[in-house]
Amino acid sequence: MNILILNAGSSSVKFGLFDAEARETLASGLIDWTADPQRAPLVIQRPGAEEVRSSVEVTDHRTALVHVVQSLTGTAGGESGQDDVITGVGHRVVHGGAVFRDSVGIDDGVKAAIARFSELAPLHNPPALEGIEAAQSLLPGVPHVAVFDTAFYAHLPPSAYLYPVPYEWYTDWGIRRFGFHGISHAYCAGRAAELIGHDLRELRLVSCHLGNGCSATAVRGGKAVATTMGFTPMEGLMMGSRSGSIDPGILFYIQQHRGITAEQLDDLLNHRSGLLGVSGVSSDFRRVEAAARSGDERARLALEMYAGRVRAAVGALAVTMGGVDGLIFTAGVGEHSASLRATVCEGLDCLGLRLDGQRNAVCQPDADIATPDSPGRIVVIHTREELMIARETRRVVCNLMNVDEQIR
Amino acid sequence: MNILILNAGSSSVKFGLFDAEARETLASGLIDWTADPQRAPLVIQRPGAEEVRSSVEVTDHRTALVHVVQSLTGTAGGESGQDDVITGVGHRVVHGGAVFRDSVGIDDGVKAAIARFSELAPLHNPPALEGIEAAQSLLPGVPHVAVFDTAFYAHLPPSAYLYPVPYEWYTDWGIRRFGFHGISHAYCAGRAAELIGHDLRELRLVSCHLGNGCSATAVRGGKAVATTMGFTPMEGLMMGSRSGSIDPGILFYIQQHRGITAEQLDDLLNHRSGLLGVSGVSSDFRRVEAAARSGDERARLALEMYAGRVRAAVGALAVTMGGVDGLIFTAGVGEHSASLRATVCEGLDCLGLRLDGQRNAVCQPDADIATPDSPGRIVVIHTREELMIARETRRVVCNLMNVDEQIR
Repeated sequence: MNILILNAGSSSVKFGLFDAEARETLASGLIDWTADPQRAPLVIQRPGAEEVRSSVEVTDHRTALVHVVQSLTGTAGGESGQDDVITGVGHRVVHGGAVFRDSVGIDDGVKAAIARFSELAPLHNPPALEGIEAAQSLLPGVPHVAVFDTAFYAHLPPSAYLYPVPYEWYTDWGIRRFGFHGISHAYCAGRAAELIGHDLRELRLVSCHLGNGCSATAVRGGKAVATTMGFTPMEGLMMGSRSGSIDPGILFYIQQHRGITAEQLDDLLNHRSGLLGVSGVSSDFRRVEAAARSGDERARLALEMYAGRVRAAVGALAVTMGGVDGLIFTAGVGEHSASLRATVCEGLDCLGLRLDGQRNAVCQPDADIATPDSPGRIVVIHTREELMIARETRRVVCNLMNVDEQIR
Repeated sequence: MNILILNAGSSSVKFGLFDAEARETLASGLIDWTADPQRAPLVIQRPGAEEVRSSVEVTDHRTALVHVVQSLTGTAGGESGQDDVITGVGHRVVHGGAVFRDSVGIDDGVKAAIARFSELAPLHNPPALEGIEAAQSLLPGVPHVAVFDTAFYAHLPPSAYLYPVPYEWYTDWGIRRFGFHGISHAYCAGRAAELIGHDLRELRLVSCHLGNGCSATAVRGGKAVATTMGFTPMEGLMMGSRSGSIDPGILFYIQQHRGITAEQLDDLLNHRSGLLGVSGVSSDFRRVEAAARSGDERARLALEMYAGRVRAAVGALAVTMGGVDGLIFTAGVGEHSASLRATVCEGLDCLGLRLDGQRNAVCQPDADIATPDSPGRIVVIHTREELMIARETRRVVCNLMNVDEQIR
């Protein structure tokens, strides 16, 4: 009686197996046929055990999932018996548009909608849909659930999701803020409330998800009220290779005076900007940090800009809620760079957020790194998007089956 | 012994006459030949006197200035005698690029540079240059001084003026934050220090210039350290008809999927967005306020977004300085809309800024509208860019003449 969760890319699938209560991770792993479909690496990690690596032949998402299910359950997909083992499948879907305000059991209408939003998330929604089709054909007897990165933002007020552009862009073209990383921010907000020991419904949190992509979200009473990513995941904070927000006038100037096309600019702002663009070193924060430590001035500058923009976003989001009770750092950079956290927190004293330098330096997530007397807490949380997807899947499956989650 | 200051548009010139100490406004006015060069209105206001309106024939900036100088001094330009009256001319120039870090006496090199920056400010620098040429030919015997809107930002640190884009955009194309409204922000910062009764060098101020264009600037110790407008005056806050910052991904999406060109988008974001775009009513804040009062929902929404973005900018700029000792509202909207100020200040308590509702409601600029016990002050200041230009002109003229300003 387990929950399988899938995060399908164009030629890879991340997966996790959870107990029926969505509390324990039984296994997690990755299958990736990008480099060599004939010998695609399949990696499975079970808690307390050595990582198991094998090499399999993959032709598409379906054959990839056959290997995954077989390895996880000891039975081949489609054979009798595995339905007893896997009782629900949760699929991570990046873009649910403005339609999906919550996780949802997948039917043909849901799939059609996910396909429709592919224009908005061309790199993410099509492979997610392929993963769903493959998993449904392999595990036809169990409910499949879509868990959306955007759903956490579906309740934003109009003043937060509209842009100051011609109103018809919204009514005619659907241009609005969607927000991303919602699964991570939602998980971290809940976990932060546990750590802080306070009811989530009474907390004002600013959650900073700093990985390859970066976003910050204001969470009041457990609900997102503002966020830095927008219509696309390009807006807001400076990221590994993405610019985040810049003066729109720059884009017009470059197109008009430098003969660069919109397509080229789109690519440059997505893949040649951010930490990589400023430092010239890498989009990987750790490599930029190393370069800065060995005296590279542009690397140092890139880190200063990156931290400054996170700090500014914290200030902007905090005043939007009238103050902040807790600041969250999560994802690769947020969880692992003590110096980034220290730099961001310089200047946040005025919001009642006081970093304990020692706690920060030695912190092992999940941890509270504010000083004991800090009015607001500062927490570092290891984000667990897969666990959150498993929880959501369980909740939706229970609802579909009309089973009370608490009693079951 | 007076100082004349000029702010030349494409077919209008605003002007002001100040005493030699740049303390008193002796006259101010406008000549505008946009509608009818045969009967261009010339309006002059002297303190304590009725406004004087006349109608003159104007063919270019030079003939316009002949009328202005004649009206102000009682002599025709170029005739002997007026040099005794006007001892210096200050010209407002919007764009000084990264070159002009201060106001400067105008020579051929300065004019060539102003012309070079016309690509960056096509609507502003060319008429400023026409105004300079006309005034120099009319008043050849006096020093002419250029006072730049960008100079206040020439000392921004690299982390504040660089964008997280490919570094070559800066080195090869000069893409950087310039900042605008610097003359206004600089004046208001100085005036705020007077009002607050504290040395400017020890204050951390956030100055919000909210007119047709809107920008907010963090001023620490009298120096700008961060600002919302950037490479162009399109970035940052929501404005009358300008969008301010939006997700760059929106622009690529619209160009790629909706067949709108960069030129069209540029125009839409400059002239059909902001308050006008969201409300559908007007770019004039007063008209949007009136519509909102009579129940127009989109007008109400536009005001909420506008205020929310000012508030977020205050939060972002405040933490950049580690806190804020004074918040400044200035320019048309900032000086006149008590309800806008009240909405912005909701949520700023957490930064130590407490608005006194009563003081705010009845305030006549310049005024302090914070509660007596507010840790930070909130001030409303009538911006006086022309006075600031006169002061700068005097300072540069004294320097040119090697005269000690204090003794003179």
